[in-house]
Order: sequence, then structure tokens, then C-alpha cells
Amino acid sequence: MLAKIHVTLKNGVLDSQGKAVHQALNDLGYAEVEDVRLGKYMEVALSGISEQEAQTRVTEMCEKLLANTVIESYRFSLEPAE
Amino acid sequence: MLAKIHVTLKNGVLDSQGKAVHQALNDLGYAEVEDVRLGKYMEVALSGISEQEAQTRVTEMCEKLLANTVIESYRFSLEPAE
Repeated sequence: MLAKIHVTLKNGVLDSQGKAVHQALNDLGYAEVEDVRLGKYMEVALSGISEQEAQTRVTEMCEKLLANTVIESYRFSLEPAE
Repeated sequence: MLAKIHVTLKNGVLDSQGKAVHQALNDLGYAEVEDVRLGKYMEVALSGISEQEAQTRVTEMCEKLLANTVIESYRFSLEPAE
């Protein structure tokens, strides 16, 4: 099973990296760029557990390690392994 | 318009950050984790251009700045602004 996890900064948290990319794109001539938010994307391959277990376990992994829940939120989807 | 961009390491490129997260998850007791790949996720808000233009412009942004196409691949989707 493959967990596809998105970790993004919560609204209202300053995204300085995003601001830097925004500025760089404007400097390159992309004046249509109004805002940039950066986040993380992770693919975690899991084996030997059911989808229901995976749901619980991946939530735990996000809470404990993958996301800093003070400033970040996460969401994930589970897919059958390719 | 909102461009949702995923930048991931190409297959075969060593993902040392992913390996570190993999190890950390195993150490925390998540033995079911078989592999972890880390990537970037970006949301770029665009204004004043058509979807067709956005398609071309965002491809350019990825090629020029957002992805290192030697080792990374990218994909994106365009959505109406919320």
C-alpha cells in the first residue's frame, strides 16, 4: 500500500520560502504569480497491513514525526501498491 | 487560477532525506514502512491569464526554477481559484 502525504503550512503561518520563490518568479518575469505556498509531499510504501490499519498508523506517523502540527497540517490518501 | 505542483526525485536518484525518515519511522516502531520518498508540493496562485496560457507558463516556471530537471520530475494540475 502506498500512502501519499501532503504536509502544508497552516494558513496564517509565514511561509518565507514561499515568499522567496514568489519573488524569484516575479523577477523572472512571471508577473501573473500572486502567491506561492511551499509544502512537502511524501510517498510512504507500507506492507503487511490492512487499509484500515494503515489509516490509523499513517495518522500516527504524521502526528509524531512527519508534520509539526503546531504550524503544519497534513492530509493523505492510501492507494494499492503499484 | 491555482497551480498545484508536485516535484519529486526521479527514480534511481538517491533520496537521502527519505532514507532518514524511513529509518526514523522504523525506529519509532513502524516496521511496516518499506520505503519513503520525499518531494516538494507547491501551490502557485495565478491571476489574469487563461488556463491555456497558465499551462505553458507553469511548465516554463518548473523547467526554469521550481524543479531541477536533471534529478527531479514535476507534474501539475490547474484549478479555478477558490
